[in-house]
Amino acid sequence: MKNKAITSRDEDFAQWYTDVVKAAHLAEYSNVKGCIVFEPNGYALWEKMQSILDKMFKETGHQNVYMPVFIPEALLKKEGELIAGFAPECAWVTTGGSAQLEDRYAIRPTSETLFCDYFSTKVKSYRDLPKLYNQWCNVVRWEKETRPFLRTREFLWQEGHTIHETEQEAKEETLRMLGIYEKFFKEYLAIPCITGQKTEKEKFAGAESTYTIEALMYNGVALQSATSHYFGQKFSKAYDVKFLNRNNEWENVYQTSWGCTTRMIGGLIMVHSDENGLVLPPKIAPRQVAIVPIGSDEEVMALCKDICTKLNAKDIVSFVDDSEKSPGFKFAEHEVNGIPVRIEIGKRDLDNGQITLARRDTREKINVSKDVDIVLEVSKLLDDIQNNLYQRALERRDALTYRTDNLEEVKKIMNTRPGFIYSHWCGDEECELKMKEIRGTKSRCITAEKVGADDKCVVCGKPAKHMVVWGIQY
Amino acid sequence: MKNKAITSRDEDFAQWYTDVVKAAHLAEYSNVKGCIVFEPNGYALWEKMQSILDKMFKETGHQNVYMPVFIPEALLKKEGELIAGFAPECAWVTTGGSAQLEDRYAIRPTSETLFCDYFSTKVKSYRDLPKLYNQWCNVVRWEKETRPFLRTREFLWQEGHTIHETEQEAKEETLRMLGIYEKFFKEYLAIPCITGQKTEKEKFAGAESTYTIEALMYNGVALQSATSHYFGQKFSKAYDVKFLNRNNEWENVYQTSWGCTTRMIGGLIMVHSDENGLVLPPKIAPRQVAIVPIGSDEEVMALCKDICTKLNAKDIVSFVDDSEKSPGFKFAEHEVNGIPVRIEIGKRDLDNGQITLARRDTREKINVSKDVDIVLEVSKLLDDIQNNLYQRALERRDALTYRTDNLEEVKKIMNTRPGFIYSHWCGDEECELKMKEIRGTKSRCITAEKVGADDKCVVCGKPAKHMVVWGIQY
Repeated sequence: MKNKAITSRDEDFAQWYTDVVKAAHLAEYSNVKGCIVFEPNGYALWEKMQSILDKMFKETGHQNVYMPVFIPEALLKKEGELIAGFAPECAWVTTGGSAQLEDRYAIRPTSETLFCDYFSTKVKSYRDLPKLYNQWCNVVRWEKETRPFLRTREFLWQEGHTIHETEQEAKEETLRMLGIYEKFFKEYLAIPCITGQKTEKEKFAGAESTYTIEALMYNGVALQSATSHYFGQKFSKAYDVKFLNRNNEWENVYQTSWGCTTRMIGGLIMVHSDENGLVLPPKIAPRQVAIVPIGSDEEVMALCKDICTKLNAKDIVSFVDDSEKSPGFKFAEHEVNGIPVRIEIGKRDLDNGQITLARRDTREKINVSKDVDIVLEVSKLLDDIQNNLYQRALERRDALTYRTDNLEEVKKIMNTRPGFIYSHWCGDEECELKMKEIRGTKSRCITAEKVGADDKCVVCGKPAKHMVVWGIQY
Repeated sequence: MKNKAITSRDEDFAQWYTDVVKAAHLAEYSNVKGCIVFEPNGYALWEKMQSILDKMFKETGHQNVYMPVFIPEALLKKEGELIAGFAPECAWVTTGGSAQLEDRYAIRPTSETLFCDYFSTKVKSYRDLPKLYNQWCNVVRWEKETRPFLRTREFLWQEGHTIHETEQEAKEETLRMLGIYEKFFKEYLAIPCITGQKTEKEKFAGAESTYTIEALMYNGVALQSATSHYFGQKFSKAYDVKFLNRNNEWENVYQTSWGCTTRMIGGLIMVHSDENGLVLPPKIAPRQVAIVPIGSDEEVMALCKDICTKLNAKDIVSFVDDSEKSPGFKFAEHEVNGIPVRIEIGKRDLDNGQITLARRDTREKINVSKDVDIVLEVSKLLDDIQNNLYQRALERRDALTYRTDNLEEVKKIMNTRPGFIYSHWCGDEECELKMKEIRGTKSRCITAEKVGADDKCVVCGKPAKHMVVWGIQY
């Protein structure tokens, strides 16, 4: 039986997405244009993502800090490419209290400028390096078209900002953090990603190079899911961040930044969820097991509570739903909310020595003995769901991954059943722009794949420089 | 030996405070006027406060959400008292991207309006109540005079917003959360607080009643440390938040809000710290034990690591400082940073079967056998430090707490060694204003103390209505 509040995913993907966001109580539109309200279920997902990533960042030596939300316009303007990239989408504060500001303030769209300004007063010697900082905060970009989680005028994110003594160390940091994002997506979100470098056209304003992890959604559209930037000395020269190096000479620091956002919630939905609502990989689910008593029999209730206690004691986050709603209503509710496992316990089953486990990913019901080692059984089931979701996503992505250097074929694919297309590219922006004419197809990233002497650009046919993954982007 | 970077606390308290903030690397001034940079040590304190409070909020049934940072002016204006109270200190966004906004946006100074707007679309029946929400976020108030942590134009806080079916339930919630703050201050921050209700003049703009917890700083100045408000139906009428009650009639919800901020970091400093820098109660210290090897002897290093492993295994957050600095430099550094316990291990002591524990609060050094049960020993010491800091703060506060209904005496106290003064009050704002002429003395709160028939107002001598605690405020 299908959830009636949710549009068919194959019929109208955009509407399906909105329906899932609303039905699972993840977010609500607000009266502030382009901004959403994160409801408890949505915010709990973000908290879970934060707690896992924060641990990974700290284990690799990073410390959290917090910079002001405001950037004076004069400060923002010091690095020309950055301001050119971000000025068109800044929100500007012009009045504080009753006074007009002399220098208006941007609400931070990203905080490189503030970090550089701070670093410039703090770093004197190579002994002060590296600084490995991160901040969790809100940022604002004045987008014209918005969609919950995927693109909103205000969003939540983390932005790592590090400075180093050498180019090599900074480049290693850039790739280390890319690796952490990839691991997080694979192991926790159960989302396979392609990693690589952005083209000149697609890189971050002000970066020397931008690395990205790219995921493929159910409908074949690509989502840039996290990025890691190597800045070289671009910002440190503009903002005068320098140190006395080991030769006792002044040198500008080498810098990186890297970030991921609440957009990940959107990616999670569009990869795993289905027509019955949200589907969550157990490792990212704020609540993993819902235990539903059928009827109010004392023995049933006692067993529900007992199982709940046992599971929670082993850090499997579980709860007993003893509300007054009907069992069928509860089943549907926990299903739409994406709780990975539901345990159903009724008097009749219990008399037959059985309880039922229902897994959210396949909606399969499994009868087990009431005397089963429930912690072991549920642990195995959660692992199995986690693996199954990853495999399912991987198979779908592979089925939607194409290799061709034939432009007509690219057109055909993108206009029928889009996905990732591996095609050679000569390196000219002009060819990228021609690809864009095909339903907005953009380079997602340059892969590490070697290019042969005979390989030709998919657009112009000239000798290829890179193997590029192309896709239609969110 | 005194830390030379820190001014004497008794000579110049304000400068002492600033010196501690800088020397302990808690915060740095930024190029954004009135805003600070939270450095790693300062932000780690906030993270620790967040994690403890967040757990307490969740255990009492609250859920986290996130509302937009912007409030359209028209929305803000719906409740007259609130806008009157906050409009003079709002930051206003007037331009988004390249376009002038039709309705300018305030950066949230507090989010009652956004919560009400959201609730009005979500609540239909008494079955939807209560909603117990909280959010962690940044807020902006355009203050003229600012000081790190105590008063900044942007600060971080949590704001709880709850709606209820009945007046009684909402009033209970208001006091429950006040109790949670008091408990947090007492048990974690080791700060004794006075609790009570604010006078009409001092209450939150738009509240029916405001409750507060008030702490006394080392210099006898009072700090409003957290507040909890009962709104009745004021906002729910202005924003049309109503529900079908059990009699099937439309009724406006009863509402509360409650909050505490990064100001708590300032309070923590001003209650416990000394002329050698930061002093932290162990339960709030992000790192509890610093282990310093003296020399690079192998046996010494091995014992340092062994002790560190044992302590961390029992959740006593410890680290070995094996950097190249001298032991003396390390001692001073961990001291200024307020690490509660330092363990010093040197070859000579070890040969004599001893290691040294140094406690930060009293700066006492304790020799113990190298074979001591180190986890037990350190646990006891941490408990003792926690208790000692609370007792010390309590004794100081009690020594600076006065009771008098003689106005001349009030003047004398406030002009020499200020503190909390318990004095009767008739209830007239005029008398509050006269008290304010004494070095800005304000009512901190109305206590629950009974008032006798013969008790007279400290200012006008008319019959008293309340026993009020007065103080000079930060």
